[in-house]
Amino acid sequence: MSADAAAALLRPRSIAVLGASDRSRWSQAVFANLEAGGFAGALHAVNPRGGTAHGRAAATSAAAIGAPVDLGVLLVPGHATADALRDLAAAGGRHAAILTSGFAETGEAGAQAQRDLVALARSLGIRLLGPNSLGFINFVDGAQVWTTPVRRPSRPEGVAILSQSGATAHFLAQLAARQDVGLAHVVATGNEADLDLAAFARALLADPAVRSLALFVETVRDAAGFVALAEAAMAARKPVAVLKVGASEVAAKAALAHTGALVGDDRIFDGTCRQYGVIRTRSIEELLATAEVAGRCGVLRAGGLGIVSNSGGICEIAADTAAARGIAVPELTAGAAAALRGTIPDFATPHNPLDLTGAITPEQCGRVVEIVAAEPAMAAMLCPYYEAPIGEEDVSDRLTALHAALAAKLNAAPVPGFVVSYTATHQTALSRRVVAELSLPYLACGLDRALAALGHAMAWSARMRDGAAPPAAPPPPIAARPRSEHAALRCLEAAGVPVVPFALARDAEEAVEAASRLGGRVAVKVASPDIAHKTDIGGVVLGVEGEAVRDAFRRVTEAAARHAPGATVEGAIVAAMRPRGIELLVGISRDAQWGPVLALGLGGVWVEAMGDVALRLLPVDAAEVRRALAGLRGAKLLAGGRGLPAADPDAVAEAVARIGQAALALGPDLATLEVNPLWVHGSRVEALDALCLWREEG
Amino acid sequence: MSADAAAALLRPRSIAVLGASDRSRWSQAVFANLEAGGFAGALHAVNPRGGTAHGRAAATSAAAIGAPVDLGVLLVPGHATADALRDLAAAGGRHAAILTSGFAETGEAGAQAQRDLVALARSLGIRLLGPNSLGFINFVDGAQVWTTPVRRPSRPEGVAILSQSGATAHFLAQLAARQDVGLAHVVATGNEADLDLAAFARALLADPAVRSLALFVETVRDAAGFVALAEAAMAARKPVAVLKVGASEVAAKAALAHTGALVGDDRIFDGTCRQYGVIRTRSIEELLATAEVAGRCGVLRAGGLGIVSNSGGICEIAADTAAARGIAVPELTAGAAAALRGTIPDFATPHNPLDLTGAITPEQCGRVVEIVAAEPAMAAMLCPYYEAPIGEEDVSDRLTALHAALAAKLNAAPVPGFVVSYTATHQTALSRRVVAELSLPYLACGLDRALAALGHAMAWSARMRDGAAPPAAPPPPIAARPRSEHAALRCLEAAGVPVVPFALARDAEEAVEAASRLGGRVAVKVASPDIAHKTDIGGVVLGVEGEAVRDAFRRVTEAAARHAPGATVEGAIVAAMRPRGIELLVGISRDAQWGPVLALGLGGVWVEAMGDVALRLLPVDAAEVRRALAGLRGAKLLAGGRGLPAADPDAVAEAVARIGQAALALGPDLATLEVNPLWVHGSRVEALDALCLWREEG
Repeated sequence: MSADAAAALLRPRSIAVLGASDRSRWSQAVFANLEAGGFAGALHAVNPRGGTAHGRAAATSAAAIGAPVDLGVLLVPGHATADALRDLAAAGGRHAAILTSGFAETGEAGAQAQRDLVALARSLGIRLLGPNSLGFINFVDGAQVWTTPVRRPSRPEGVAILSQSGATAHFLAQLAARQDVGLAHVVATGNEADLDLAAFARALLADPAVRSLALFVETVRDAAGFVALAEAAMAARKPVAVLKVGASEVAAKAALAHTGALVGDDRIFDGTCRQYGVIRTRSIEELLATAEVAGRCGVLRAGGLGIVSNSGGICEIAADTAAARGIAVPELTAGAAAALRGTIPDFATPHNPLDLTGAITPEQCGRVVEIVAAEPAMAAMLCPYYEAPIGEEDVSDRLTALHAALAAKLNAAPVPGFVVSYTATHQTALSRRVVAELSLPYLACGLDRALAALGHAMAWSARMRDGAAPPAAPPPPIAARPRSEHAALRCLEAAGVPVVPFALARDAEEAVEAASRLGGRVAVKVASPDIAHKTDIGGVVLGVEGEAVRDAFRRVTEAAARHAPGATVEGAIVAAMRPRGIELLVGISRDAQWGPVLALGLGGVWVEAMGDVALRLLPVDAAEVRRALAGLRGAKLLAGGRGLPAADPDAVAEAVARIGQAALALGPDLATLEVNPLWVHGSRVEALDALCLWREEG
Repeated sequence: MSADAAAALLRPRSIAVLGASDRSRWSQAVFANLEAGGFAGALHAVNPRGGTAHGRAAATSAAAIGAPVDLGVLLVPGHATADALRDLAAAGGRHAAILTSGFAETGEAGAQAQRDLVALARSLGIRLLGPNSLGFINFVDGAQVWTTPVRRPSRPEGVAILSQSGATAHFLAQLAARQDVGLAHVVATGNEADLDLAAFARALLADPAVRSLALFVETVRDAAGFVALAEAAMAARKPVAVLKVGASEVAAKAALAHTGALVGDDRIFDGTCRQYGVIRTRSIEELLATAEVAGRCGVLRAGGLGIVSNSGGICEIAADTAAARGIAVPELTAGAAAALRGTIPDFATPHNPLDLTGAITPEQCGRVVEIVAAEPAMAAMLCPYYEAPIGEEDVSDRLTALHAALAAKLNAAPVPGFVVSYTATHQTALSRRVVAELSLPYLACGLDRALAALGHAMAWSARMRDGAAPPAAPPPPIAARPRSEHAALRCLEAAGVPVVPFALARDAEEAVEAASRLGGRVAVKVASPDIAHKTDIGGVVLGVEGEAVRDAFRRVTEAAARHAPGATVEGAIVAAMRPRGIELLVGISRDAQWGPVLALGLGGVWVEAMGDVALRLLPVDAAEVRRALAGLRGAKLLAGGRGLPAADPDAVAEAVARIGQAALALGPDLATLEVNPLWVHGSRVEALDALCLWREEG
């Protein structure tokens, strides 16, 4: 619904600029950009004073135009926005891009004015971009409603830029122009009083000219909308790259000062990106390069990168950087090596990356690329090679022949491949022409950014090949609210979570009997809904059996009576003892913005001192839990060693996924469900302890 | 000595090009570059056929020139190199830059030819750059002995580029030209048959026009030379930034294929860089930006970064990136906030980073920068602000006034400060002129690289403020070679290392007596030089006291007899038991290239599964050990918690430094000295176990 409105807004049939004036720089820019873009629809200037603006007659109102208006672009002063909206409605307009600023970004009075504006727009049936937006550029249809100078890309297709900061949208578009990255759209969403970045992004996913999205995000105003966008992008198999600020406290404070927006919990955002295949980048350059490369590659097959260069030093740098970016650089097969020696006899032992040196013919260069690209272990090719000529002094017949050979073989290769500049360069009219004439698959972002982008593209592709989680039926609600450890354990057991065998003993006699039924040594833990930290007060005795259980029961209940005299004591939990194992912490808590969030980590210092926790939104399936586990810094410990068998990832993942389902089934009043530890010994997985907290309990 | 020769080679008084020919592209380039550089010394063309070359008469030999020749530049074919060297010597030449390739980089025959060349040069008293070098550029004196097109920087001072790869030197110089980074020198060291990169680097450190070094390193041929360079740079307080390949296995293989050079143990190189204040970077762009920024900043005072921009989005990105790079972004003082509100009334609560938006006068902008730069918590300033105009369409009076205000206030600030482009740009003739006319302290590398560089500059500055370790007197040699645990522990004790109280008991009676003397519970460990893994065979009993010690002695010696029947058993070590503590692993081993290397890590999974080890060359002082500990990923565990007191860093560092001294005192045949664990409990530090292995033992 919002996405449909956003799509219609970005593809107007006709435009009226309200507040058009020769004296306004923004008005000048909007008209100049619309004219330069060759916008095919009707374009009207509206100014209450009439006269002319930008060489055309200005209507005194939109209604006075006498023809239907699709989109109103509002450049009027803040106090005149409401009237302008009414005028637009009278002219039949259903969409407005409000470039006027002075609303929520200025404080509470502005926020109220913005709320009034939205209410008015809603009553008029008008959907909004902005206010406080720099506009949008639809390069596909030439609708360049934009307030800074625009340079059209060589190809009006590829990346769509969406930014909550107008200036950052401008910097991204400027960088794209310098590097001649194919651009389909640019949208500066401003204050997002009505339609937000996720709505515009979903709209653009449906545009066939859009191969990928590059998002600059300061705040996620609608968590569900962001998740829906990510799911839609997965379904469309189009990569979404995002640069979101707020990872640091200082940035969070800066964002608050800039737009009044809270950046939210960055760690949850990060986990959500991992979960839904959104690519998180760390700079403007990496954002654009990643969107470009991932969009041009599409979903890559599994495999590594074939690297061919004319410089040995560059080969070595590329190899190190690839490794740092998680990119495999597979060795060549014997067959490929033989074919390479047949092409260039000097190759004693050809390797990947392959240094062709400067002394090679274009034909040899092309043949080498063909051989390496045909290797089954390669998912993509990258050739840091002579750059596209920037000035006439760079042009030579040899260079042209080399580029032609590279272009021919890379374009015909079974996997995507690029020639990349050694470092980031500006493209010139000449280099654009060479790239276009030769159909050279060229990246001007430089080797370092290209490898960062390829690393992202490969990780995203792996996520896409895994596929999305099948929509899970919501678990049947659990009506009971477990308030004690034993109730929580029973609840988990009923939800299919493996739980350590245990019994609740009301007295010492029952404890001894329970221990005897369980067999072997047991743990005895005081059972009370009022005592959270049993160990601290001596409420836990480990490793007893037989008659010693009686004594243990007495000790833990007496300890409770002594240290927590007001606590309700229901007896003691008698649970089977387990040998040393790998211990996981599985916690679910409810975030005000994102809803129920799963936290998964290795126990002990890993969570406490290292903060090594993977966060995911619920629900999660077992596949997602496996990915989350693999992403932990301490993931190697799951491989066992030090006397422990390797953890069975399927068994762990299944148990964790079921804990997540149980948490959902317990309903929205569940504040916290924590299993600590989830004990893992090979394929044996058991919850040894569990805790539920409820909202009204604080 | 080598550095003096290198310095003289790079500053020739006269040059003869042997193999000068109009038909050679390289010869053309060398003459064109020397002429463009305005080389003031005599320049001679030498060609056996005589005639003319590059518009000047060619002498048939260097000797035939009839004037003394300082530097010979050899472009002759490989087989003619020896004769050319002899000719050069006859003309009085003492230095040769051999650009000819086809030597060690081509295989064993070439390596032999190279060895012969060096022997000849030595006999002739000639020092060499190369062979297989692209040459060198001395921008300061115009000695541009270089084989690709050279663009002179606006300022012939600042960075010196030294590279073992000619192509990479070219890419670095090209990037410097595009961004107009001040360059003093470029040296491509080629095969380093005689003078190596470290020698040239030490030579250039002495040049007052050189503020920093940017090194591209494939291999360290002389570890001591590299350390000497690093020490010299510390003494000169000039930053050395390095991009060294070989961190990944693939790159190590590529380097071997490229130059036949072994990259060595990358982890030791990395530790050495940390130890000696060499800045390790990860890309060509980061290398150049770091050398430029750190060189222009010099040693910064302690503190953080003041950031002023005209974009809120950029402020947020800058804050996140700064945090990721370890840069503090200090909050403003109340005084500064008040002064800012006095300058710009709209600032309700000014923060660092500071978003000035677009609506500000140049005077206000300058005043703001002045206020923030005066904050005592700032060590440097960075202003991602309007870029220097690239084209005439970018120029405006307002932009010029803003840049002038920024330049004036940044240049007058008490700390270094820069205006930086939002993303990396090419500088044009226009932007160069603007930067020069306004003395704008400008970085064209873009915000992201600038912050990476500033992070490095700040870490390097902290290292410089710490100072170099005072030269330590070599420890008096220890003649004995401890071959058993108890001997190793006694040896450490004698060297001043705190060791757990222990005794060697020859029989059960002595064991009981020793335990009684030690008091409390003890550990009993079989004492044998032949049994390394005592625990595995049951050779260790923990936590016994009184008569139980007798039984323990019997058990551990019987276990030894049973599992290692041939082993010499000297009895058992009886050692005081220690409560749970933080356990460190301290190991010294001898690297073939780097000599004795200290490895320092947290025990258990941290070393084994996580590979979290800091490596340092011996000797180390306590300050260096403290820095090494702080750099461990698990460093937080040293802060205690989980029932343990925080480790006293001074006590730990002192003990580790003494272990290092002991290892040095044990002499060059020591293969391994390992203390595992070094037990730490607050300020109590003790070696609980020790092991020495000797070279002849394998």
